[in-house]
Amino acid sequence: MKLSRHLGKTVKEVPNTAQVVSHQLMIRAGYIKQLSAGLYSYMPLMTRSLMKISQIIREEMDKAGAQELLMPAMQPSELWKESERWDRYTTVDGIMFSFKDRRGSTVCLGPTHEEVITDIVRKEVSSYKELPKNLYQIQSKFRDEIRPRFGLMRAREFVMKDAYSFDLNEEALDVSYKSMHKAYTNIFTRIGSDFRSVQADAGAIGGSGGSEEFMVLAKSGEDLIIYCDSCDYSANQERAESKLEVSESETDQKPMERVFGENIIGAQALADFLKIPISKTTKTILYQADEEVVAVLVRGDCEINEIKVANFLGCSQLTLASAETIKELTGAEVGYAGPVNLPDSVRIIADHYVNNRVNFECGANETNYHNVNVNFERDFKTPEFGDFKLSQSGEICTCCDGKLLEARGIEVGHIFKLGTIYTEKLKCEYLDKNGRTQPMHMGCYGIGVSRIASAVIEQNHDEGGIIWPINVAPYHVHLVGLNVDKEGVGSVCEEYYSKLSENGIEVIYDDRDARPGEKFNDADLMGIPVRITISPRTIKEDKVEYKLRKDSKESAEMLSIDEVITRVQQMLKA
Amino acid sequence: MKLSRHLGKTVKEVPNTAQVVSHQLMIRAGYIKQLSAGLYSYMPLMTRSLMKISQIIREEMDKAGAQELLMPAMQPSELWKESERWDRYTTVDGIMFSFKDRRGSTVCLGPTHEEVITDIVRKEVSSYKELPKNLYQIQSKFRDEIRPRFGLMRAREFVMKDAYSFDLNEEALDVSYKSMHKAYTNIFTRIGSDFRSVQADAGAIGGSGGSEEFMVLAKSGEDLIIYCDSCDYSANQERAESKLEVSESETDQKPMERVFGENIIGAQALADFLKIPISKTTKTILYQADEEVVAVLVRGDCEINEIKVANFLGCSQLTLASAETIKELTGAEVGYAGPVNLPDSVRIIADHYVNNRVNFECGANETNYHNVNVNFERDFKTPEFGDFKLSQSGEICTCCDGKLLEARGIEVGHIFKLGTIYTEKLKCEYLDKNGRTQPMHMGCYGIGVSRIASAVIEQNHDEGGIIWPINVAPYHVHLVGLNVDKEGVGSVCEEYYSKLSENGIEVIYDDRDARPGEKFNDADLMGIPVRITISPRTIKEDKVEYKLRKDSKESAEMLSIDEVITRVQQMLKA
Repeated sequence: MKLSRHLGKTVKEVPNTAQVVSHQLMIRAGYIKQLSAGLYSYMPLMTRSLMKISQIIREEMDKAGAQELLMPAMQPSELWKESERWDRYTTVDGIMFSFKDRRGSTVCLGPTHEEVITDIVRKEVSSYKELPKNLYQIQSKFRDEIRPRFGLMRAREFVMKDAYSFDLNEEALDVSYKSMHKAYTNIFTRIGSDFRSVQADAGAIGGSGGSEEFMVLAKSGEDLIIYCDSCDYSANQERAESKLEVSESETDQKPMERVFGENIIGAQALADFLKIPISKTTKTILYQADEEVVAVLVRGDCEINEIKVANFLGCSQLTLASAETIKELTGAEVGYAGPVNLPDSVRIIADHYVNNRVNFECGANETNYHNVNVNFERDFKTPEFGDFKLSQSGEICTCCDGKLLEARGIEVGHIFKLGTIYTEKLKCEYLDKNGRTQPMHMGCYGIGVSRIASAVIEQNHDEGGIIWPINVAPYHVHLVGLNVDKEGVGSVCEEYYSKLSENGIEVIYDDRDARPGEKFNDADLMGIPVRITISPRTIKEDKVEYKLRKDSKESAEMLSIDEVITRVQQMLKA
Repeated sequence: MKLSRHLGKTVKEVPNTAQVVSHQLMIRAGYIKQLSAGLYSYMPLMTRSLMKISQIIREEMDKAGAQELLMPAMQPSELWKESERWDRYTTVDGIMFSFKDRRGSTVCLGPTHEEVITDIVRKEVSSYKELPKNLYQIQSKFRDEIRPRFGLMRAREFVMKDAYSFDLNEEALDVSYKSMHKAYTNIFTRIGSDFRSVQADAGAIGGSGGSEEFMVLAKSGEDLIIYCDSCDYSANQERAESKLEVSESETDQKPMERVFGENIIGAQALADFLKIPISKTTKTILYQADEEVVAVLVRGDCEINEIKVANFLGCSQLTLASAETIKELTGAEVGYAGPVNLPDSVRIIADHYVNNRVNFECGANETNYHNVNVNFERDFKTPEFGDFKLSQSGEICTCCDGKLLEARGIEVGHIFKLGTIYTEKLKCEYLDKNGRTQPMHMGCYGIGVSRIASAVIEQNHDEGGIIWPINVAPYHVHLVGLNVDKEGVGSVCEEYYSKLSENGIEVIYDDRDARPGEKFNDADLMGIPVRITISPRTIKEDKVEYKLRKDSKESAEMLSIDEVITRVQQMLKA
């Protein structure tokens, strides 16, 4: 493609809504164009990268025995009511576009396709002989985000690969799940990204059989990954587990006391003021969990993991209780809640590490007052315990007692063992060898295709622009012609352009009448992995200047066009 | 792919809503699955065919210098208001899905993308140096059809390729248009279809610069094509022009008379009753054209082409006037309207062939009465003339006086010279060499990707099922294993399956435990172009049975697997 025919000019100004670097670079390099909030046109360069990412996904999915299909984006509401997700997706989360068609039927635009695929499979498969099945599609998905942001990372329309497996039983699902894990590993490796698979929370998709996210590692990532420095434990912080140092030396209960301590901010300050270890302090936070108010207790040196709490409670919405509610129930301002003498209407749950302590501190339900030497049962009924704390780097690995570290990542894939939660609701069943009806065991596997492009750019760029890994770059070679109207430069460019193309090398050729600096800056910005420059000087030597985008200016070499072809073909084979 | 893993069973029963053969065969052969009215899942076989069709389109579009991009399906209403199409698409035709998002903005799902692409190009292109541009996308489109029907032919969500060219002026648009015409000819040739390009009406897309449809010829086609038996004139009946025999022998005007003739049905019966040539009779039909009532006159042996009438009037809705309106304006029942003494409020327009007659017949605006020997000016004011008749086979070609014939076709492509209708409204302009602002000249070019699959099946099937042309068949070879559990058949099948695949031949392998008749019937139904059969008998000879889907049973040959590979590779190269 010649730049003179190409649509997608580089631009200097970026709107200040573009906060992350991939969003800024995609706009500056002419990869995307915003239509309205969260809606982007993929310009020709982006479209080419997305097609390459899609093709890698397709090849690995096919290799794993999956079949591609394409379901409608538009779906009838009935199926979502059958799976009992309609209210959650439309009213509670409001993430699904839904509306009436001209005949008054309510339809929605699929953010995901569990319902539709399960409907197809229940109609299509009836015998154990026909299992397993694994189906996938690559398609535009829709989500009515409250706050679309970060360019293609959280858009309202985006390209996704979603796959669904159907198996005889849990063991067979395990085989399908593992084969998808392997396919995903191959995909993200071939794309050229630095990634990690981590244990994850299943979220709105549901299923308790386990789920893992594939994270492209990048400083700007929205997700925090907690991983072990000595074993292969790795989890999204939302889901991570950890052990804490426990050093309870006391055994005898002291009498509980109320202590005045005005405006003490933070657990460490409170511990210092009270002259107790911070591990003896307690955070008590009141939540509104659907209709119920719940007090959640964690050790003062911990934070609450609200996802763990919501999963434990099984509630559909969990929000901090309002200041009014806190005042009414505790009699105190926000910050002084504690479990002692809370009204019976408040359910109390506590993190495991709140347990096994003697003579600990809690808020006294009175502004500026703290209870010390609090003990279970004597001072308040022993609460329900669970894992409610947010795991953090520096804590201890539950698998091997190694040290936990943290890294930031961008979620680009998510695989789930759904088990029978959808197949039971939608009666997606088969007859087993003994003629008995059984629910199928289901898995689902997503990849954010357009999000991958963002993540790869977050991971691969410098101050000059994008640095594409060659397998997902829109073109392999950026051919820069300098002084194209002089000394036959134009005709040599055309000749080499054709020669490269005939050898299967994809070339974008800057044939514009522009200054060298402008051409080199645009080449850096667009990020094509190989740059070759042709000028009157190179023509004298019958060579071209060859430089990799990722290398410095100084690394440029003079090569013949045949040497260039060999090198690029080797890069593509690698 | 092995049939035991494949999703898409053949089925015996077809719902009676499936009226056309392609719809029936797609359901029976497991190519599509209905989700709800006008919404279909493309099962794995259909997905493969659609991808092959898409790839052919892509290659030919790229060869013609077009660039692929991908615009959002979801679009803001503002752009459609700017192009003045919002009301037409939402309220008048009601064909566009539109709704409010969670922030209260009105959005729609694009049935087409003139607005979005023009918005992109006006922001992207500013100088004559940057033109021409030609952009295309392959994408799911949405249309809220009143009556979705014929399977993929008139669905509510369907795959389309839409392309848009932007040029300096009319001459340059002409070059782009011709190159698209050539690309389309290549595409439909490579797909393996018997097609014809015909002059067409531009419809809701608009533009008066000319438009052509590409029709796959099929008896079941919704469109009637009028073409000349001696020159290359060819047009959709909606748009076709023709000449009629004219044989006016009279010159002297006779006095007008009112004649009683009760319940005479049809122009020929009336001519016989009045003992005049049918060409002297006149049809007068009253229409409601937006707010206005218009009487349209054609010769009694002609029908009215309402599209020509609507284009002439420039109205947005044209419907037959109600019986009440007719009674009120003519004083007569339906069927006796005529131009003499109609109220002045009724605008009268007449087909050219109504002119140049002397002493003709018209309805008398009184039930059961007919005026004869009517003449212009003396009996009523000479009306506005235009081409309002529906051209039919048997009439005379306007280009060469040859004879017009008719054929049925399915519209699979449509190309338009839009000129400046969108670029002026949306101010999509460039600076010319002299620094003057000029509107770009635009063309648009659509192909119904999913509709092509239907059309190809309408054209290529027999009583046993589909007969795919090899370039768009989901697989090249259907490998039937008979008695796969006997005498090593299974292992030979596996070996040949691998060998074919390694040689770039796509194979679907029937490894099921089923009777030969069932396997052969399914193979015929699915329509893969080459069938090879492996059984204990063929293994003894170290051969396979080779048969083309389109040929009879008797044509089956015994070939070695290497001969099969050579033959299929030759078919693919052809």
